Formats: sequence, structure tokens, C-alpha cells
Amino acid sequence: MLLHRAVIPHLRQACRLKSAPSRLYIRACSTDDSLQPQCPSLAFSGDNSSTGGWKVMGTLLGLGAVLAYHDHRCRATQESPHVYTREEVRSHSSPETRIWVTLGCEVFDVTEFVDLHPGGPSKLMLAAGGPLEPFWALYAVHNQPHVREMLAQYKIGELSPEDKVTSTLKTSDPYIDDPVRHPALKVNSQRPFNAEPPPELLTENYITPNPIFFTRNHLPVPNLDPETYRLHVVGPPGGQSLCLSLDDLYKFPKHEITVTLQCAGNRRSEMTQFKEVRGLEWNIGAISTARWAGARLCDVLAKAGHQLCETEAHVCFEGLDSDPTGTAYGASIPLARAMDPEAEVLLAYEMNGQPLPRDHGFPVRVVVPGVVGARHVKWLGKVSVEPEESYSHWQRRDYKGFSPSVDWDTVDFDSAPSIQELPVQSAITEPKDGETVQSGEVTIKGYAWSGGGRAVVRVDVSLDGGLTWHVAELDGEEQRPRKAWAWRLWQLQAPVPAGRKELNIVCKAIDDSYNVQPDTVAPIWNLRGVLSNAWHRVHVHVAP
Amino acid sequence: MLLHRAVIPHLRQACRLKSAPSRLYIRACSTDDSLQPQCPSLAFSGDNSSTGGWKVMGTLLGLGAVLAYHDHRCRATQESPHVYTREEVRSHSSPETRIWVTLGCEVFDVTEFVDLHPGGPSKLMLAAGGPLEPFWALYAVHNQPHVREMLAQYKIGELSPEDKVTSTLKTSDPYIDDPVRHPALKVNSQRPFNAEPPPELLTENYITPNPIFFTRNHLPVPNLDPETYRLHVVGPPGGQSLCLSLDDLYKFPKHEITVTLQCAGNRRSEMTQFKEVRGLEWNIGAISTARWAGARLCDVLAKAGHQLCETEAHVCFEGLDSDPTGTAYGASIPLARAMDPEAEVLLAYEMNGQPLPRDHGFPVRVVVPGVVGARHVKWLGKVSVEPEESYSHWQRRDYKGFSPSVDWDTVDFDSAPSIQELPVQSAITEPKDGETVQSGEVTIKGYAWSGGGRAVVRVDVSLDGGLTWHVAELDGEEQRPRKAWAWRLWQLQAPVPAGRKELNIVCKAIDDSYNVQPDTVAPIWNLRGVLSNAWHRVHVHVAP
Repeated sequence: MLLHRAVIPHLRQACRLKSAPSRLYIRACSTDDSLQPQCPSLAFSGDNSSTGGWKVMGTLLGLGAVLAYHDHRCRATQESPHVYTREEVRSHSSPETRIWVTLGCEVFDVTEFVDLHPGGPSKLMLAAGGPLEPFWALYAVHNQPHVREMLAQYKIGELSPEDKVTSTLKTSDPYIDDPVRHPALKVNSQRPFNAEPPPELLTENYITPNPIFFTRNHLPVPNLDPETYRLHVVGPPGGQSLCLSLDDLYKFPKHEITVTLQCAGNRRSEMTQFKEVRGLEWNIGAISTARWAGARLCDVLAKAGHQLCETEAHVCFEGLDSDPTGTAYGASIPLARAMDPEAEVLLAYEMNGQPLPRDHGFPVRVVVPGVVGARHVKWLGKVSVEPEESYSHWQRRDYKGFSPSVDWDTVDFDSAPSIQELPVQSAITEPKDGETVQSGEVTIKGYAWSGGGRAVVRVDVSLDGGLTWHVAELDGEEQRPRKAWAWRLWQLQAPVPAGRKELNIVCKAIDDSYNVQPDTVAPIWNLRGVLSNAWHRVHVHVAP
Repeated sequence: MLLHRAVIPHLRQACRLKSAPSRLYIRACSTDDSLQPQCPSLAFSGDNSSTGGWKVMGTLLGLGAVLAYHDHRCRATQESPHVYTREEVRSHSSPETRIWVTLGCEVFDVTEFVDLHPGGPSKLMLAAGGPLEPFWALYAVHNQPHVREMLAQYKIGELSPEDKVTSTLKTSDPYIDDPVRHPALKVNSQRPFNAEPPPELLTENYITPNPIFFTRNHLPVPNLDPETYRLHVVGPPGGQSLCLSLDDLYKFPKHEITVTLQCAGNRRSEMTQFKEVRGLEWNIGAISTARWAGARLCDVLAKAGHQLCETEAHVCFEGLDSDPTGTAYGASIPLARAMDPEAEVLLAYEMNGQPLPRDHGFPVRVVVPGVVGARHVKWLGKVSVEPEESYSHWQRRDYKGFSPSVDWDTVDFDSAPSIQELPVQSAITEPKDGETVQSGEVTIKGYAWSGGGRAVVRVDVSLDGGLTWHVAELDGEEQRPRKAWAWRLWQLQAPVPAGRKELNIVCKAIDDSYNVQPDTVAPIWNLRGVLSNAWHRVHVHVAP
């Protein structure tokens, strides 16, 4: 634990230093196509240059755990390795039998590490009794020397020679088909691909251009043929299930709306500065706005015979993206929202007048106005109405908010509701933190948005850390009452008070329920780093 | 104290047996319309049948206290009673002057009993210097022979004959017809009458008893005859206007819902502490919850031929209360809300199973779930559908939020939307600011609510000003999705950290859109002192 503490300042530094190595990093990752087990696997050359802050964190935290808890481990195995068959490894896949995994020809007992796994125990358990490669291929964060060093501590032996041959599990890179991305995007994770537009581009346009719309993928991008694509809509008992081609979908009335999507993790990096969380290091750009067109979900559900019922029900969505076990991305929304024509939930096939880009769900995704991005399921394969919320990991074991007092030892995911509508949000896109502005007058720009169709009615901006306030000018389209699905861009020209050498610029938005953003991030900190909507703060210098 | 301890296990058992005494209790109250002292009050027959556990507790504790501490009391007063004026009694309302109360024509010195009062000292202190009847009417637990026997031990004399009759009021007063109010109410303004229940009573019941429901009047209370009362509903062009008697209203389907009402000015006193505002000095009690029944507004509007239209429209309400110029109180809500059956807007004629009390709009008021109290127009006279919001002062020149930078010289009321849905709110009702709590464990109680039907999903409580947090236990009824119209009561038992001499208790609520309360009041300060929903803070001392 001492080491644990000792490394944190370095982690923070590493996080702050992270700026634009991302493109290098993309290339570095994507050149590493070969994910087959290789012998000796611990020798393969690491991709040192491309560190994201949390990769370092994960590694170091893991390493700390290793050193703190496992120094006592006997390393005799390195001198005279014990030999196991793949069959034997397979039989160690539960805490009762202990949990073994392989990497290359090496065998590891990771029982003690499962609960420390930064991605959660359940993800690691997917590999229990088998090879790590297919999972590491999916989550490129693992391909780092520190992670491999950590793993080495758990080595208990090697695979028998005949199993080294039979382990030609064909793990061709599942990301090999991922589309080419725009180089302006700031990449937070290459596999799966997660990236945001830089702040200075984010509010250049009210409608975010498709190539720089923030991308949040949980899995590889499926490569779907629009000709053979079918959307399966499960009918009610006694009703009819639908199997819709794209042409079938086009026959529903086409509905077009401007909607802002925001990831629950937007601005997570500010939470991390207060205390570590698990999640991608989003800056302020995990939010974008597009003009979406498609069929209304309520029309499609009605066609299948669904009606609003008195009892609570949920519409579950399944994507056609899936992990190596075949588990698809999934999420759900309440049936009441899905069936409400005023809620305008879409099965969208167009984004800004174009077919959906592959990264955004081609050929069909869900768009749920006013609701967290995680429910806007992409590459939509299946829609069903269920008495319970989706049983997917992302509905039940992720994307929920908790008190700052809750940690990974005490968290009870069932105790919190899944995030649906998001709270009021705003951020400053210009100037940037650390920049030097001219004396005289400063121009400040940003965005503001609220969930649930609540319109932004005001943005307050302060130059002195929140002591005094100015009212910003709201740009962008006027919003329809109760259907303010899209953000407002805003700006303020304010005189720089004479003699000031620096400005602590702060913004906060107010929505039409007069909800406001909280002052500080610490009291809303949560272990997953979601819902980060405290006042956005930018510190700038004033040119003399 | 020995006896005290001996009875406690029995009391606990009795408490567990407590089931649903609240409705009984409300009935008991509402049958007692006359709250004036009566002679001889000690002769009235008690309501023994409806005992909940804590009634038994109260009795036993009280009796125990009597036997333990007061056997020595001189009963000479019973032989030759001393005579006091009501004025004299009123002057004995603090421990320094000793604490006197009256019941019927008898006077009691209860100074020694205050700390033994089973309901807590603060509740008894509400009656200090005055009659017990209004409180005993509210809490039927007192109407038992044992309680009266106990009280008899404290008798010190009788009221003077002239004080046995109630005083008459002057006639030229526009408020002359205002109803008699419950003395527990903390009055912020007598004319018009504005008052709130004290914190220690506020969260005693999930449903606020009618006599202590917070009262926000803008004008004198009209005295309306239910026989001649008519509600005028203006029809659409080419449609039919309605002129509805109470009997006509009763013919619409009766709809019943539990709704919390909150004044926009609730907790204004905290804003005033930062900087002066214009408005009544509400503490945390301008919020209450009742079970309302009436006709749905959407049914009445439909009957008059109104339909939801594409263009924006508003439903305007006019009260039958009016100022000397004849201007009535008025307000409006969007037509979309009014016509939405799911929004459950009521024309209410019942409050907690009784006809509306006069202070709450007899015979008919509007109830708009999830929306600021100011739109729940009382003594409803007229309903119309208009292209614009109500032109009333209270819609256009009041009940709006502004930036802290806006003052009375710069305010532009047209620049801000009228308050409709309110933001998330919570407050601590126990302990009170400045109180001394015992070391060991502290019990903290309060309420939490949010506007727009958004359910409260969590209340975080801190004992150290917001550095660390506990999660409170939510009581009260589970809420329907999207229709969480009523508050949640909450409580927390938390250990007092050893050695702490004081606690800075803080609470904040989170609603199901994960909106949170802002940390501090200064950045949400506004010139009218509305929307005061920063963390509620209570500073207490810890007994050594």
C-alpha cells in the first residue's frame, strides 16, 4: 500500500503530461495486428510510447498490488517450470479451483488478482481457464510492459509442449475492420475506439461534423452489409415479431430531430484529478450534436403490436457488436419513454443527412433524446419489450451514480438506478486552461446542455473563480418547450479587470427546471467517474 | 430514571406494533374544528381506541417521570386555586421565566417536564405560554386519562374568568374573515397570512396534517359559499364555455394523488444571510405534502372542447381572492402539461380526505404536480386557454430566477422564464442549528424532493461540512416512474467521531436525472430569493 501511495503523484504527472501522443499511439497499436500467442510471450516488444494516463495508472496500481500482496510468492517456478496441459488449465476457472489463465505458453494463477482487476473481476473471469490473448486483443490497454511484469508475478508454470502447438486459437485482430478515423480526434482508447473532438473544434459548429463527432465504442465495430441487415423486433405475446430490412424501416414516417449526445463519462478527467476512478480519461469533448433522421421507435413498436401498459416495462436494445464470448452490447430505456411520441426516440439511419458512419452505428442506431449516450445502442440488431431492464453489464453494472463514500469494496450496483436523463452541464471551450489571453477584453466560448428535454435558460460566467458573475449570450437554435434535445452554444465578451495577471474562468448553466451545476467536483465524485458536471474551471494568464 | 429504564423495553415493543395510525390521526384532528380552549377541558372524553405504540410510550414515560420526580409536588393549588390572566401565562414561555401552559381553564407549570416530554422538548416548547389544545388536537396521543393525570401534577392555578372567553376581532379589516390558524405555525406574515410548520413537526408525518400544512396567501382568504360557487371554464373559439358547480365537478372521474407543494421562496432565509433579498423570510418549512383529490384538468378542458395544439399555448388560472382594486391572483402553466393525463394536473376539492381548508383554496384549487406552489391557484374562479402566459404580476414580475449579478436596477423580468418545475431540494429537520447532541450516535432527519416528477434516488449526509459522506435511509412511499410527485423523508444514524466538539451537518439530495444541489448559496443568490436549494447546513455542538 505504501508503494501504492508513492506512485500516485507520478500517475498524476503522467496524466497531466498526456497531450497529443494519441495519433502516434493509434498507429502504434494498429500496427500490432498479431495477437496470436507467441513464445516466449513475455519477451514481445512493448509499446512504451503510447501511454494514456489510466493505462499507466492501471498498471502501476496493479503493480502496487502485486508488490504489496505478493512479494511472498514463491518464484521457484521460474527455475524449473511446472508443466500443465491445456486441459488442466481449463479445470481452474473458479475461485474454488483457483483461477488460471495462459499467455503464450505460460500459465498464471491469478486468483488473488481477480478482485484487483481494474476492469472489474467479471471481465477477467471471462478468460478464466483459458488464454488471455483474445481479451487483450480487445482491450489494448493490456499491451504494456508494466502489465506483463505484473502478470509475471503470478506465473506458476508453462503449457505442455503439445499444447503449445494446439493453441493456435485463431485470434485475428477483432479490430482489424475498424474504420479509418479523423486525425483531429483525441483518442482515449484505440481498442475499443474512444475519441473526442478537441475543445477548439467542438463549438466551431452548432452541428458537429460527422468525422469529429465523439466516438464511444465498447467493442469492435461490426462490418454490416446494408443489403442483408435485418432488425429483429420481438412482438408482444400473441403479437407479431418483425424482421425489418433497411427498406422496411424507410417505409415508416421519417422523423428528423437535432439531438445532443453525451457520454456519462464526459469530463471524467476532472474527477480523476480529485481522486482516481476507473474509466476512460474523457476531457470536455464526450459530447456532440447531430441532426438525426429515422423511424420513430413508437411507430415501430406499435407496428409490432406493443402498447403502453400500466405495469413498468422496458425496451431492451441489443447491438450487433459483440465480445469474444458472443455477448452483444445492450441497454434499455423505460417503455413509457419509448412509446411517447413526444419523447421522439428514433431508430436513426441518417446522421447529418448521410447514412450513419460505421463508428456511429451503421446502418441503424437508437437515438434517445435527453438521455445518456450509453442507451443510444449502435448497430442495432434486436428490440424487445421486457418486464425488467436489460441484463447487460452496461445497464446493470456500469453507468450508475454513487455517493463519494462508495468504493469498489462496498459498491452495490443494484442500489442505484441506471443513468437515463442526464443532469445540467456546461463547459468552456475557449480559452483553454493555461493559455495566455490579451488584456482589455476576453472572449469566452462554450456549450451548455441539459437532459430530459430541459432547455438551458442561462449560462453564468465568472472571471474570478465564482465571486462575481456575467450572463453569457446564448447562440444556437431556440428550443421547443419540453423538447430541448440539443445544446446551446454560448459566448461572452468581458472586460479583463485592469491589473489582473490571471483569470479563474468558471461557467455554470441553469436549465428550465432551474437546476444548476454543483460548485465542486469532490462531492459528486464517484468510483466510475460518471456524471461529472461541476462548474467548469479554466485558469488563464493575462498578457502584460 | 430507574423506572424510565424499566419501561423502555415495553415501549420499544409497543413502537414496533405501530402500524398505520396516520389516517386515524388525521381524522381525529379534522373532527375537532374548534381549537379554542374549552372549559372544563379535563373532563372531555379521550380517544382511547386509536392508540399507536408511541401513545403508550408517551403515557408511560410521562407517568414514570411524574412518579419519579414529582411526588413531592405541593398540591395546595387544588384547594385554593391561584388565578392568572392569559397575559401572565404568556410571559412564562422560557426556562428562565419558567414554562407555563393552559388546558381549558387550568394553568400548569411544566418546566420540569419539558426535558421528559416523549415527543422531545422542542415540541412541547411550541405551546409554551399558551394553550395545549391546538397541539393535543393535532396529536391525539395526548387524549388519554394517564396523560391528563400526569399533567394534573403540574397544576398551579386557573385562568381568570375574563380570559376564559375568547376575544373578538375588529371589523374593518380585509383579513377579518381569515380562518383561525394552528398556533404551531411559524408566521412569516399575518396579512396576508404566510406561515410554515416548525421543522420538528414537518417530518413527523409523511402526509402533512392539514392544520400545519404551510400556507402561502397573497391576499385575504375569500369566504366562498359552496352552494353558489361556480368555476368558469372558457371554451375554445366555436366551443362551449362551462360554468361548473361543485356538484358538476364531482361528476368528473375523481382522481387522487399524493403531491408535495413547495413555495419558490422556501429556504429564502439562507439567501438573506448572504445578501438581502425581497421576500418573506421562509425557513425550511415552505413545503408540505398532502393527498389531493379532484377532477383532472385535462378532463375538464376536454369537456370544454380544448385540444392539444401544435403552437405553444398556456392555461391561465384566476383565483377568487383579490386585492382592493379587484385584481385577482393569477398564474398559468403550459397547455401541454395541462392536457397530459400523465402530468395529473388536478382541480382539487379534497385535501387529505377533507374538503379543502379555507387557507388552502376552499372549495377548489389547482394542483400541478412537480411544479412550484405559485401555479397551484387557490379559490379557483376561472380557467382559460391563451396564446401567452398569464399576464398576472405573479407570473410575469415575480417567481423567476436571475443571475446573482442582477439587481433591482438592472432586472429585466422578461429575460427569464417563469418558474415551473422546481430543482432538486432537501433539508435537515433534526437536529436544529445550534442544538447540542449527545456523543456516541446522532440521528439526523429531513426531507428531499425534486420537481417534474423526478424521484429522489439518494440523500448524502456529511458530519464534517461536506468532506466525507454517508448515505441516508429513504423513508416514505416508493414513487412511480416519472411521477414522483411527493417527497421522501430520510434519516441517518451515524456515529459521532470520538473527540468531536461540534458537527457541521450537511445534506444534499440527488434525483433520478442525477441532478444535485449546489454546494453554496451565494452563486445561486437572486434578488427575489427564490430557488434556494444549496446544501442545507446545520451546526451542532456535541455534549462532552
